[in-house]
Amino acid sequence: MADASLMDKIVSLSKRRGFIFQSSEIYGGLANTWDYGPFGVELKNNLKRAWWTSNVHQRDDIYGMDAAILMNPKTWEASGHLQSFADPFVKCPACSNFFKFDKIWDEIWNSDWCRSLVETMEGAKDTAVLIKWAKSKGKDLAPNLSLVKEPAVTISWIAELHHKFAGVNLDFKNFMGRIAASADGVSRIPCPSCGGILPENSMPANLMLETYFGPVRETAQKVYFRPETAQGMFVNFTNILDSRHPKLPFGLAQIGKSFRNEITPGNFIFRTREFEQMEIEYFVRPEESDAKLKEWIEARYQWYIDLGINKDNLRIRPHDKGELAHYAKACSDIEYEFPFGWSELEGVANRADFDLKQHASFSGKDMTYYDDASKQRFYPYIIEPSGGVDRSILAFLVDAYHEDIVRDEKRVVLRFSKALAPVKVAVLPLLRNRPEIVGLAKELSHDLKKDMVAVYDDTGAIGKLYRRQDEVGTLYCVTVDVQSLEDKKVTVRDRDTMQQERVEISQLKTYLLERLK
Amino acid sequence: MADASLMDKIVSLSKRRGFIFQSSEIYGGLANTWDYGPFGVELKNNLKRAWWTSNVHQRDDIYGMDAAILMNPKTWEASGHLQSFADPFVKCPACSNFFKFDKIWDEIWNSDWCRSLVETMEGAKDTAVLIKWAKSKGKDLAPNLSLVKEPAVTISWIAELHHKFAGVNLDFKNFMGRIAASADGVSRIPCPSCGGILPENSMPANLMLETYFGPVRETAQKVYFRPETAQGMFVNFTNILDSRHPKLPFGLAQIGKSFRNEITPGNFIFRTREFEQMEIEYFVRPEESDAKLKEWIEARYQWYIDLGINKDNLRIRPHDKGELAHYAKACSDIEYEFPFGWSELEGVANRADFDLKQHASFSGKDMTYYDDASKQRFYPYIIEPSGGVDRSILAFLVDAYHEDIVRDEKRVVLRFSKALAPVKVAVLPLLRNRPEIVGLAKELSHDLKKDMVAVYDDTGAIGKLYRRQDEVGTLYCVTVDVQSLEDKKVTVRDRDTMQQERVEISQLKTYLLERLK
Repeated sequence: MADASLMDKIVSLSKRRGFIFQSSEIYGGLANTWDYGPFGVELKNNLKRAWWTSNVHQRDDIYGMDAAILMNPKTWEASGHLQSFADPFVKCPACSNFFKFDKIWDEIWNSDWCRSLVETMEGAKDTAVLIKWAKSKGKDLAPNLSLVKEPAVTISWIAELHHKFAGVNLDFKNFMGRIAASADGVSRIPCPSCGGILPENSMPANLMLETYFGPVRETAQKVYFRPETAQGMFVNFTNILDSRHPKLPFGLAQIGKSFRNEITPGNFIFRTREFEQMEIEYFVRPEESDAKLKEWIEARYQWYIDLGINKDNLRIRPHDKGELAHYAKACSDIEYEFPFGWSELEGVANRADFDLKQHASFSGKDMTYYDDASKQRFYPYIIEPSGGVDRSILAFLVDAYHEDIVRDEKRVVLRFSKALAPVKVAVLPLLRNRPEIVGLAKELSHDLKKDMVAVYDDTGAIGKLYRRQDEVGTLYCVTVDVQSLEDKKVTVRDRDTMQQERVEISQLKTYLLERLK
Repeated sequence: MADASLMDKIVSLSKRRGFIFQSSEIYGGLANTWDYGPFGVELKNNLKRAWWTSNVHQRDDIYGMDAAILMNPKTWEASGHLQSFADPFVKCPACSNFFKFDKIWDEIWNSDWCRSLVETMEGAKDTAVLIKWAKSKGKDLAPNLSLVKEPAVTISWIAELHHKFAGVNLDFKNFMGRIAASADGVSRIPCPSCGGILPENSMPANLMLETYFGPVRETAQKVYFRPETAQGMFVNFTNILDSRHPKLPFGLAQIGKSFRNEITPGNFIFRTREFEQMEIEYFVRPEESDAKLKEWIEARYQWYIDLGINKDNLRIRPHDKGELAHYAKACSDIEYEFPFGWSELEGVANRADFDLKQHASFSGKDMTYYDDASKQRFYPYIIEPSGGVDRSILAFLVDAYHEDIVRDEKRVVLRFSKALAPVKVAVLPLLRNRPEIVGLAKELSHDLKKDMVAVYDDTGAIGKLYRRQDEVGTLYCVTVDVQSLEDKKVTVRDRDTMQQERVEISQLKTYLLERLK
């Protein structure tokens, strides 16, 4: 179930414990840009390594790559990004904020004012009172609550409505929608930010971030920061054929940053202007493309589950025909139920032969594949599983977040899978004013670090240290106490069961490595 | 010894075998931008992992981070980049190329025309002949070979000089330098590209790449792509104090892309506009900063050697006082002898308290450290080991490159260390038309992939396959032959010794894992 307050908890824990900080926070931040802290970067590295291992190292048919972010601008002519990679947007004349037109109702729906309005209006029962009240204010509402000849729907008016009729049952989203298309046919959309009236027409805004090469602007070359890693693989298709001689089907895989001039970034690290992608371009014979698409959708869905996502929070959603990108023959999204609703983690598309044909046409180079068996040249089709690193991190954070009650106290624990947990073991001295205990604990953590990600912490009492490690999802806590000095044993505590076990120090590393496998 | 042709060999091997391709090559590339291919990305990931393991995972006092590339622009006011991160440059009026003024003589020296000139002039003996010849051309040379009242020194003139006096011994670089500062005091510098005359005065060019947030340029926010990862760590100093409670000395470590609008990128992946850094910011008590600087210089020097660089090709070069950046109290470069000469791999600087003080002053935030013992607040000093990922890759490629003679044939082999080798094992079928052999080889490679980076290759005869694996530095080749089907043994060939050993298939993985440790 979607739970808005969960997002606040995740954002707060991320900052408090060192997963994710607001970028350049001391300067008030930079619109929806985020920095990964010590635990965040480990989590992200683990996620990327898991993806790389299963998609590159353990497969026989996929080659890794790391193309530059900056590419020859002709790439973006061929791909269509320069012409059509644009979002229609509107600008509020009152508060000067920009909004993505396609998503404006979601924006309104998710705005602070609308959410609080809805929460308190949900108990309301009778719409007739609303109509009567509106009339007394000189505003005609039709029986279906659509607005008749109303020149301006403002947040102040809606707020007034709300105050007057707190207690009236109302499908608020439906109500707002009908206000928008009022009786005189003129669209009136309230600004999600200030409640003012937005203009009727939207304008297109290209989503690519541009910059200039060369010291003098007049003669500089305009270049673009890639909006997707995919094109870096398409343009290297023949380089891979020439250097690795692969046979169909085979793929390229890449992890890297992309940039989009998003009009409305938001939802923490879910949608940001700077983001990281993990993409595969899998080249297949045209006739096997439907089957391979199906295989990849299933493989990618299973990957998230294998890494720990609860399958109840994951779904596969095939695109409608109308929703498909111009290059795609078919596409399914793998979606996660975030606190703000079901949203895309990864898209798996059949791009057909669009990309190779486009680049062949714009570059004048032969980008076909030569089939030894049939002695024929043809354009392979491309199956593209394209996932977002940052939004996956958010999904794994949300999914791992649990609140237990332990001895009447709330325990927050991140139940990351073994592969993802940023720290595998924490070594904690029970008493930090006893040099022999501290010394032994430091020695143990130093030794464990050679074989696993381990930390040492002595900046609090043991209860506080446990809570802290639970909050970052550390799999095992090793506690060194007075007795350890005598019996050469330490206490190992399991994050999930909270069971404690005394383990011989000489066996500790073997004990842990076995459980970490 | 510097060897210019070695660079050509490295660039060519990189493309042929799939280490590094020119970016968007099908569109003619993009000035000095490069893509990492299948083996290049593995090499780079191995290098980054080795750095992260030794500097983050295995140390008790360093925290990893991954800050965003885009930061609040005030960061660059505080750091000084907006005001003074500029290179003086000149533009050639003849060919319209731009050159970094500071390095113009190196540029000339490294230009194709100058190099070829030098090579053939190196045998020359007598300068008097030069002066006489110049006079016959209406050009006066002083006895020290400086040029008297010469309005234009052009490449055609120098070339003529060269043709006339091939065989005259001449310190060419010195000669060129004296031409530049000729008797009338007017600087005349030939264009490294076309040989025309460059203007006398240089102009400053800021090195940061800028872009714009927001759909409409007029109201957009100008932001910058970071020119260094360092600032992302400085601005998070208090976030780390609050979330991890570290005690001095401690450090932050980060690997990530940076961007500079270089006027003259070049030397393959050595200097590019888009590049990756691995930086540590190590916070220390001011009084221990000299000692810690020394420790870090030694530690970082040793790291390259431990990873396989021949120590004869590595040196530590302390900066002169005049060479120090405005923020640095002291700095040493770790340099590698590239084919184009000794150049910086990494700089290790004592930045004193410049950065924290600047950010405190520009943000109005307290960025001091509170010392529990002395109950005092102060600004720590910062020791910064700042290495380049791409130039390190180039150094490891150059250093690994060897040409052996094996049975009268040249063998090219990349002698990467175990940690860096992109592929650990290749499994090769001796006969690719025998399904049982191919089947067994594929099965073995598939099984090995679970525990190490292994490849399967059957696209040539065994001799060709061995050469190919040597050229990418694969540590072991496992060959499956007819006998393998009977005796359940395979041949394991060592890359460096070329010794072959028959190994039981059941013992193969253990055999390899032991040697890969």
